Amino acid sequence: MLSAEIIAIGSELLTPEKTDTNSLWLTGRLNEIGVEVKLKTIVGDDAARLEETVRDAVKRSDVVITTGGLGPTEDDITRQVTAAAIGRELVYHDEIEAHLRTRFRAWGREMPEINKRQAYVIEDAEILPNPNGSAVGMMAALGEKYLIVLPGPPRENQPMFDDFVFPKLREKSGAIVFRKRILKVSGLGESAIDEAIAPIYSAYERVSTSILFNKSEVEVHLTAQAANAAEADAVNDELAAKIVEKLGVAVFSTDGEEMEAVVGRLLAERGATIAVAESCTGGLIGERLTEISGSSAYFIEGVVAYANEAKIRTLGVDPEIIEQHGAVSSETAAAMAAGMRVRAETDYAISVTGIAGPTGGTDDKPVGTVFIGFADRDRTKTFRIGLPGDRYLVRWRASQAALDFLRRQILKR
Amino acid sequence: MLSAEIIAIGSELLTPEKTDTNSLWLTGRLNEIGVEVKLKTIVGDDAARLEETVRDAVKRSDVVITTGGLGPTEDDITRQVTAAAIGRELVYHDEIEAHLRTRFRAWGREMPEINKRQAYVIEDAEILPNPNGSAVGMMAALGEKYLIVLPGPPRENQPMFDDFVFPKLREKSGAIVFRKRILKVSGLGESAIDEAIAPIYSAYERVSTSILFNKSEVEVHLTAQAANAAEADAVNDELAAKIVEKLGVAVFSTDGEEMEAVVGRLLAERGATIAVAESCTGGLIGERLTEISGSSAYFIEGVVAYANEAKIRTLGVDPEIIEQHGAVSSETAAAMAAGMRVRAETDYAISVTGIAGPTGGTDDKPVGTVFIGFADRDRTKTFRIGLPGDRYLVRWRASQAALDFLRRQILKR
Repeated sequence: MLSAEIIAIGSELLTPEKTDTNSLWLTGRLNEIGVEVKLKTIVGDDAARLEETVRDAVKRSDVVITTGGLGPTEDDITRQVTAAAIGRELVYHDEIEAHLRTRFRAWGREMPEINKRQAYVIEDAEILPNPNGSAVGMMAALGEKYLIVLPGPPRENQPMFDDFVFPKLREKSGAIVFRKRILKVSGLGESAIDEAIAPIYSAYERVSTSILFNKSEVEVHLTAQAANAAEADAVNDELAAKIVEKLGVAVFSTDGEEMEAVVGRLLAERGATIAVAESCTGGLIGERLTEISGSSAYFIEGVVAYANEAKIRTLGVDPEIIEQHGAVSSETAAAMAAGMRVRAETDYAISVTGIAGPTGGTDDKPVGTVFIGFADRDRTKTFRIGLPGDRYLVRWRASQAALDFLRRQILKR
Repeated sequence: MLSAEIIAIGSELLTPEKTDTNSLWLTGRLNEIGVEVKLKTIVGDDAARLEETVRDAVKRSDVVITTGGLGPTEDDITRQVTAAAIGRELVYHDEIEAHLRTRFRAWGREMPEINKRQAYVIEDAEILPNPNGSAVGMMAALGEKYLIVLPGPPRENQPMFDDFVFPKLREKSGAIVFRKRILKVSGLGESAIDEAIAPIYSAYERVSTSILFNKSEVEVHLTAQAANAAEADAVNDELAAKIVEKLGVAVFSTDGEEMEAVVGRLLAERGATIAVAESCTGGLIGERLTEISGSSAYFIEGVVAYANEAKIRTLGVDPEIIEQHGAVSSETAAAMAAGMRVRAETDYAISVTGIAGPTGGTDDKPVGTVFIGFADRDRTKTFRIGLPGDRYLVRWRASQAALDFLRRQILKR
């Protein structure tokens, strides 16, 4: 398995506004042919740091790709610094200059003298033509390794990579293919999941497994390597099935699907309809369910009953319930769900009422206290949950808990 | 001027899907106190590469910040590897374990044994408390330099940085201060704004100005440098006032406030109330308005009238209007807003109906066609807008257009 490093070059990539996105596309292409990206660096127009970075990278990794810094200005230091890092000279290519002059003339301009810089190429490197810009790329073989120097603009580096670099690396990397699978789990913590499934995944030497917490759910990432895609997928399938067997209904997705997509699919498969009554989540559950294209098949109506009068007037909650138990209570959640379902004439309704904070908490019901309600034609159910986090997270996690409750209720039917 | 490097740790950051965004926020904060980020690295759960990266970074730069890899699982190698890189031991802190046990009990759970790993801290490092998670941070002084180890989740590392790291680095970095100001503009394009304000900002040599498009609005970023914060703020104030004078009501925020916060403040200042009737945005406008703490003072009720029956039954839209003009029409938008306002007995109501896509477009009303409605006690107003982008962007931009319409209507009163 070949290892790669990607080095993005340019001081603008070290500002608070800009992030290097070239490496994402390159990583996707490299992974397809079993080349694993082990490290990424973003470095400014800073010769000393860039030279050290390139020198370290070619020591550690089989393939080193740089992007950017090939323009004609003084800030564009990639040519001379990458050459120095691997101990080679730059060589002037008259034919590149001639080609540049032709290009400029085709645009009705004379080539500025400054662009002559772009005719320098690392000694013994293969020149990678650039039909979409003035900077050629370079590919230097270093024994069994490669240093590949690409321009920064995606519409220049992507076709250059695909046309000249990809075929060569595919040949070199041989037959290995990597395939990824994401499982999502609700209602269990990161460490509990790891404790439960470590004995299972440890037996799979050709799958790398990582466990990540992501706002309100835990993701289990499987990356299988095999001789071809079908084989790798089969290994992922097998391991995923064993994990599902172990964790049961807590696994809500085995292919990276979002909770709202899973719930939507369950509803659509059953021809069932849903309505949502929200208080502290303020519309978030409706928003998430309707983010799915085609959700109009099952999502009928939502009410954001923020004020008590809205709960009474639109959801038909009995004012005495609110008076006796409070707006944040199991009784109110039940009445909201039942009232919503009757109003919207749906199969199911869910409701949420709680204290998102930062104010409004009491000793009895601190910030993060949320009641979730569910109603179908026959009955209502509710549960209480205490959610950690700030206002944003409490609301997000409440929406996730409500959708997960709905999912589990549908699956019971 | 101090130099910094940021190292993001985690194999998930080396996939084609994920990019390191923590470093953007950290860069912004570091720049404020004149600390320049010279290099960023993204490294996986790979002890050898991480150790080399940290060792090189502390040689080259004054401040080295790592993010991530402090969880309780075996993949979380940051503690032992950063310690090894600077030649120190890890020390077990009973008081951290005790604190973790208390935290877990407060959630009604016992601490899994695996979490004991999080009680190890680099020898002689300052422990940085984490009120929002189980991983403490660390700050190790290396002569005049610092190695700072932060958890990955932004909600954990940002407050930790602000509370414990920022004050120390500010003291160390000395005299120059950079202060940033963000103006937000709706309804004008990037280049039109630049044409209008370039003559104004060009006169300010000690302010760097950049203009960025951000989903549905344009941001004008001002960064003033001066001997102290008050002086830098005064320069930003002066320039911001001139830009507002030039661009007028299109500037909706001069301090980076979100649209929903601006609208909320306008409503609260006037003691006015709002209700929202949504179709294609599915609850997004309600969600955005109620994301603001204290929004219960003005946000009364929302209805997500996704199905036509919901528009008729809950908003009182005349079925003939839908029949004659369609659910996506100026007439329906007007009836939704008026019906919502009457139901909720509020001062104002807004409504949105449109085609978010990817399906449902027609020749007359292609995907992205959205009608926005507004109602107060005296009248209704609507407008039609054609929004570019995918389903997510059309919905976001529709919510922004509706909130901006509401803002402009309130300001007229």
